[in-house]
Amino acid sequence: AKSYNITLLPGDGIGPEVISVAKNVLNLAGSIEGIEFKFNEKLMGGAALDATGVPLPEETLTAAKQSDAVLLGAIGGYKWDKNEKHLKPETGLLQLREGLKVFANLRPASVLPQLVDASTLKKEVAEGVDLMVVRELTGGIYFGKPRGFGTDENGNEIGFNTEVYAAYEIDRIARIAFETARKRSGKLCSVDKANVLEASMLWRKRVIAIAAEYPDVELSHMYVDNAAMQLVRNPKQFDTIVTNNIFGDILSDEASMITGSIGMLPSASLSSSGPGLFEPIHGSAPDIAGQDKANPLATILSAAMLLKYGLGEVAAAERIELAVLDALNRGFRTGDIYSDGNKLVGCKEMGEEVLKSV
Amino acid sequence: AKSYNITLLPGDGIGPEVISVAKNVLNLAGSIEGIEFKFNEKLMGGAALDATGVPLPEETLTAAKQSDAVLLGAIGGYKWDKNEKHLKPETGLLQLREGLKVFANLRPASVLPQLVDASTLKKEVAEGVDLMVVRELTGGIYFGKPRGFGTDENGNEIGFNTEVYAAYEIDRIARIAFETARKRSGKLCSVDKANVLEASMLWRKRVIAIAAEYPDVELSHMYVDNAAMQLVRNPKQFDTIVTNNIFGDILSDEASMITGSIGMLPSASLSSSGPGLFEPIHGSAPDIAGQDKANPLATILSAAMLLKYGLGEVAAAERIELAVLDALNRGFRTGDIYSDGNKLVGCKEMGEEVLKSV
Ligand SMILES: CC(C)[C@H](C(=O)O)[C@@H](O)C(=O)O
Ligand SMILES: CC(C)[C@H](C(=O)O)[C@@H](O)C(=O)O
Repeated sequence: AKSYNITLLPGDGIGPEVISVAKNVLNLAGSIEGIEFKFNEKLMGGAALDATGVPLPEETLTAAKQSDAVLLGAIGGYKWDKNEKHLKPETGLLQLREGLKVFANLRPASVLPQLVDASTLKKEVAEGVDLMVVRELTGGIYFGKPRGFGTDENGNEIGFNTEVYAAYEIDRIARIAFETARKRSGKLCSVDKANVLEASMLWRKRVIAIAAEYPDVELSHMYVDNAAMQLVRNPKQFDTIVTNNIFGDILSDEASMITGSIGMLPSASLSSSGPGLFEPIHGSAPDIAGQDKANPLATILSAAMLLKYGLGEVAAAERIELAVLDALNRGFRTGDIYSDGNKLVGCKEMGEEVLKSV
Repeated sequence: AKSYNITLLPGDGIGPEVISVAKNVLNLAGSIEGIEFKFNEKLMGGAALDATGVPLPEETLTAAKQSDAVLLGAIGGYKWDKNEKHLKPETGLLQLREGLKVFANLRPASVLPQLVDASTLKKEVAEGVDLMVVRELTGGIYFGKPRGFGTDENGNEIGFNTEVYAAYEIDRIARIAFETARKRSGKLCSVDKANVLEASMLWRKRVIAIAAEYPDVELSHMYVDNAAMQLVRNPKQFDTIVTNNIFGDILSDEASMITGSIGMLPSASLSSSGPGLFEPIHGSAPDIAGQDKANPLATILSAAMLLKYGLGEVAAAERIELAVLDALNRGFRTGDIYSDGNKLVGCKEMGEEVLKSV
């Protein structure tokens, strides 16, 4: 039987609950498809801070690098919000992304027919939305140097960051985006602020250059402020969106909320060769942690992305995706996606219903 | 009679049409309230590029600085989209903001009961939305140095910009925001990315420091990605939002689209002493330029903001605001806000209906 080493990073808040459910689903789908998983659970985020004093222990990063794929729950919480920067759970996540060199973040946002009412958008605007945000994840203002605090030439206290992109960083994320668009509807929209920022001008120039390798993909460009509007006005106009780290952070969250069910949305972060990082896009939800109320479906669907994009195990991935749809079709809903006439269940029971359908 | 010098910058696309209507409305409201306007029309944007070779001629900036307030139509168009940076219409706008030192950009986004159906959001989510985005306009990544193109230490081609804020820049925009919130519902939400960016950490620290001067205003903080989500999920939770230049660009456009009627939304950009700059938030809409289809209401309402925030002429401002509501109540609609049962009119006719109500 095939065997894979998976690093599990439960993290904080609802992280452990949703990871535990996703692990069971991975095990069952794997056993049916003749795949064995060896899970290695490690500390990360606030949990790691409390236990070891740092948000990403060396041991965790090493284990992650040596495994075939990494599944993360969620990190962060009020408890660590006031920590200094190098002691924030978020900093651990950024170090993990950097350490794994996962420069390509794929964030699907689709409105399932079963959940169209969960969107705050009118039904005719929301139904049929099916888009993919390809966000650059290891460059730009998140990592650019110089950064820090200081004084300007007049002695004023300042805080500063650098938005910087190298051509090769843009080229490689553009290729991932064109490949993604090619497998979908063949339409790619690159989002930038090239009317103001030099970093965006280079972005646009390189995306146009790479487009020559993908004559079958239809490329368009949009300014980020307009994209933020168009996602509200008519999200169906988008198929694949590619953008930089900070714009991707903002727009992918906006797009996810347009579906109305962020408890459903997975993500994949890929490098050019090493293990990928897979995580739900929702946060650690400290207010409902430990109460068996969390929606595990985003993490289960992240496990499906792990199989598909991380391991190339497409059959097992699709088995899980169908099981999720089946559990929804049978009317099971956690609180965040509940609507009248359905069956309200907790995190564990939702996991069991998915297991029945695997 | 009181007399004011107003610089008119019609600009490009639909700019001249909407400015011409707003000028008539200003004249009538002024004459009723005993105010005289001397208008001085100048070139700006693409129109200035074509006539003089630069997007903001020296003469235009000088006239603007010497006047009591500046009313701008819109700038830009396909024709100049591929221009080099210093020859873009947008660069002229940034130079104008910098030249006038208008650091505080006020962008209201409210859903009028008459137009609630224009929003793509469900009625219960959209109705009653009434928020104000206070955007820092002359700092941050728009103006930060160093910026440009070059090579990194490995010889890779790069494009880069600097996000930088000085404490005094944050303090002064924070004060405007607190004052604004105080006059509204007393709730201020400061939006940043302080979990990642040093510039945002200083932002948050200074906003908290300034909050001590406004104990009656309730201050909260939100990360920009979450704010982009919350604007879609429940825009009514917001009253006044304060944020930096680039986040304000994105979030104010998103907020405006939530109203569904960006053809209605004005903006004011204020300095600490000199003339303010007033403009509709919509663009130059080159596709409908010269066809008498544009909605002049955003520019008319910008003229009202000019009276209120720029000249302190509150009675004349409110006269114009009421006239706009009255024209809407009488069922007049331009194409962008048209719905069944109303009367479809063009730009000029909409202007005439507002004049009847002034
Ligand atoms: C937690 C935070 C650092 C992170 C980011 O900004 O990238 C999160 O918002 C995300 O999108 O994964
Ligand atoms: C035209 C452009 C430079 C401008 C900006 O980004 O500020 C516009 O989007 C705005 O918001 O006024």
